[in-house]
Amino acid sequence: MNRLEAFSDGVFAIAITLLVLEIAVPRLGGGLLGAIVGEWPSYLAYLVSFATIGAVWVAHSVITEHVESADPPFLRINLLLLFFVSFLPFPTKLLAEYLGHDGAEEAVRVAVTFYGVTLLLTSVTASALWGWARHAHLIHESARDADVRYLTHRLTPGLAGYVAIIIVGVFQPILAVLGYLVIALFFLVPVRELRASRRAGTSAPGGVDPAS
Amino acid sequence: MNRLEAFSDGVFAIAITLLVLEIAVPRLGGGLLGAIVGEWPSYLAYLVSFATIGAVWVAHSVITEHVESADPPFLRINLLLLFFVSFLPFPTKLLAEYLGHDGAEEAVRVAVTFYGVTLLLTSVTASALWGWARHAHLIHESARDADVRYLTHRLTPGLAGYVAIIIVGVFQPILAVLGYLVIALFFLVPVRELRASRRAGTSAPGGVDPAS
Amino acid sequence: MNRLEAFSDGVFAIAITLLVLEIAVPRLGGGLLGAIVGEWPSYLAYLVSFATIGAVWVAHSVITEHVESADPPFLRINLLLLFFVSFLPFPTKLLAEYLGHDGAEEAVRVAVTFYGVTLLLTSVTASALWGWARHAHLIHESARDADVRYLTHRLTPGLAGYVAIIIVGVFQPILAVLGYLVIALFFLVPVRELRASRRAGTSAPGGVDPAS
Amino acid sequence: MNRLEAFSDGVFAIAITLLVLEIAVPRLGGGLLGAIVGEWPSYLAYLVSFATIGAVWVAHSVITEHVESADPPFLRINLLLLFFVSFLPFPTKLLAEYLGHDGAEEAVRVAVTFYGVTLLLTSVTASALWGWARHAHLIHESARDADVRYLTHRLTPGLAGYVAIIIVGVFQPILAVLGYLVIALFFLVPVRELRASRRAGTSAPGGVDPAS
Repeated sequence: MNRLEAFSDGVFAIAITLLVLEIAVPRLGGGLLGAIVGEWPSYLAYLVSFATIGAVWVAHSVITEHVESADPPFLRINLLLLFFVSFLPFPTKLLAEYLGHDGAEEAVRVAVTFYGVTLLLTSVTASALWGWARHAHLIHESARDADVRYLTHRLTPGLAGYVAIIIVGVFQPILAVLGYLVIALFFLVPVRELRASRRAGTSAPGGVDPAS
Repeated sequence: MNRLEAFSDGVFAIAITLLVLEIAVPRLGGGLLGAIVGEWPSYLAYLVSFATIGAVWVAHSVITEHVESADPPFLRINLLLLFFVSFLPFPTKLLAEYLGHDGAEEAVRVAVTFYGVTLLLTSVTASALWGWARHAHLIHESARDADVRYLTHRLTPGLAGYVAIIIVGVFQPILAVLGYLVIALFFLVPVRELRASRRAGTSAPGGVDPAS
Repeated sequence: MNRLEAFSDGVFAIAITLLVLEIAVPRLGGGLLGAIVGEWPSYLAYLVSFATIGAVWVAHSVITEHVESADPPFLRINLLLLFFVSFLPFPTKLLAEYLGHDGAEEAVRVAVTFYGVTLLLTSVTASALWGWARHAHLIHESARDADVRYLTHRLTPGLAGYVAIIIVGVFQPILAVLGYLVIALFFLVPVRELRASRRAGTSAPGGVDPAS
Repeated sequence: MNRLEAFSDGVFAIAITLLVLEIAVPRLGGGLLGAIVGEWPSYLAYLVSFATIGAVWVAHSVITEHVESADPPFLRINLLLLFFVSFLPFPTKLLAEYLGHDGAEEAVRVAVTFYGVTLLLTSVTASALWGWARHAHLIHESARDADVRYLTHRLTPGLAGYVAIIIVGVFQPILAVLGYLVIALFFLVPVRELRASRRAGTSAPGGVDPAS
């Protein structure tokens, strides 16, 4: 698990940092301030992808924290998750390029849908990683049932959310992008409570958890 | 904390190394030596950003060294800090592009201000990370009060410095860039004394620190 | 071994994530959807290189898991392996550029062969790393003979496969690229069984393995 | 030391992997094979920089292995070393661009000298890092005097070699580049013997080293 975590952390950290390379230096013409402001699709795409990779990293570290040892399918699903995460800079680049494009409605729609499908596949793979860990009994025996159920419960609605927003995006592309941001920010919030409580539980004297 | 540190180290290391990609190969025309010298804004921007990310990394490792375990807000503030750090290559690119631009005074001013505001937000977020650790009692009990007060004291003047230099930058852009370099170098100096002294303290036999 | 693993993991993670930078944003002209679909050589090259680096990373972590300490030649062979791994984004770029190029059959053939030779050299170096570890008795005494023989057996056919496909690629470039994908996916499958079984063996009470 | 090593490893791994981005896809025109061969300056520059960063990484891991804890100057010298290492892709790019340029002798000379000076500064900083560790008594007490003297002895001739080759490079640029490759490969060879012997020594029962 150590090298799996180190390698995954590396891919997450690189993917999240490469995103900034896609923001191009604006060309002058009527003032730099206006040119910078005119690049808002780049910033929005950057922000949404950053928040999403951050959220997936949080989910990934919660999952691996509960998992005792990796078996072959777990490792392959993990590699598939890293595949989608490291692919994300490309749809982000497409989104940044076409989001504010007037007179190219078809391109905007395609770019937003392509972006959303990548997010959906990332999210499905993260759920599959957790699902496999539960199915193959890879989870620490010390993990509390309530935590396992809670994490399962948390990972599911994201999928339905992505499907719904992909459909919305065909008609309202910018609204869909904001929706993807909301899902990522929403995911960043309460999962950590779980993690903190588990930590507190394991560090209690004698390993006894008064809450269970 | 281990994976938070590993992931953060990854983002810091990548952001600091990506900076060099922004330095373009100079076009020939009157000798390569002159062309290389003529790219001084790129080198200056590179140097200032490198020193700043280095200083933030030092501050980050001092902060996490004092923190026992991360709670959800700490993790989110940390992600926000990584957001500004990994965004920094973009304002650096803007600065390198427009700093030596004659006849584009407005662009120079905008680029320098944009750069300074990013540095200020990075610095504010680093202070908030430490402030939250103190507020939520995440700090190791073994940490000495003098160290905690000293670190708090050290992180504050940077903020005032950045605000002052942003204002100076409207009138004297190059002076402001040099000012940002001074803040980073200044920060790199004495914080480590604290860290070293803490180390010495904790490695003393019986955990007793003769200085306290 | 710790820093060797950390440094190697870093190079693998960066090389696998940099691949996405080579996929260019398609130019509009008859719809973005058609333009995205028309970039299939980029996606195929990306997928094959991703799977190959993933497979080499798996092989590398199985090898280092069996190795107790690195001697100077092991370290140099490891550096050579990282050399080929970090070079791979360049032949990938060539492949993505020329694979779908009509009317440039010689270029397609050269690009596919160049790509295949790089994969072959990577594979030869990985085998040499393992061969040296066996030759110089760097392997943990606790490693089971069956595992060592199995891993030796697994690493060999890849070499013959690459040589065969390089020859096929002169006549059928696209078939060869698919062949490289098959080798990588094939390698990703059963090696992990070995690793998992070894893990199970070492965690058995008293280190006794009932299967041996 | 842990985070210093992790952060340094990250910077080394990224700098060594970014080098490949500088190799451009050759334009067609008379066959891809000829075009690829015609890019030999890029490959040579890539190879020399890869070997040099690899050698500096080896030196860095030997140094940090002997060092018990970092004090503030050690950390700042280390940051300076990372500064030169992460800057190296830029002179490499210059070298790749101008090395095979016919009719631009001044540019070739400037590019080779600029490259050599960066290597020299990297080497001087690595020596300074080790020198400071010795001066400030940061070295493990268990380190054998013979090892410390040997490492000091190994790090010095590199400096003289770089100065000599920089002068040669003014008259024979390509010869100088080959010289830089020889220094890096030469350095990669025997330093590891030391490390291995030290490892063997510390793992001996009772910490007694029969060789001393």
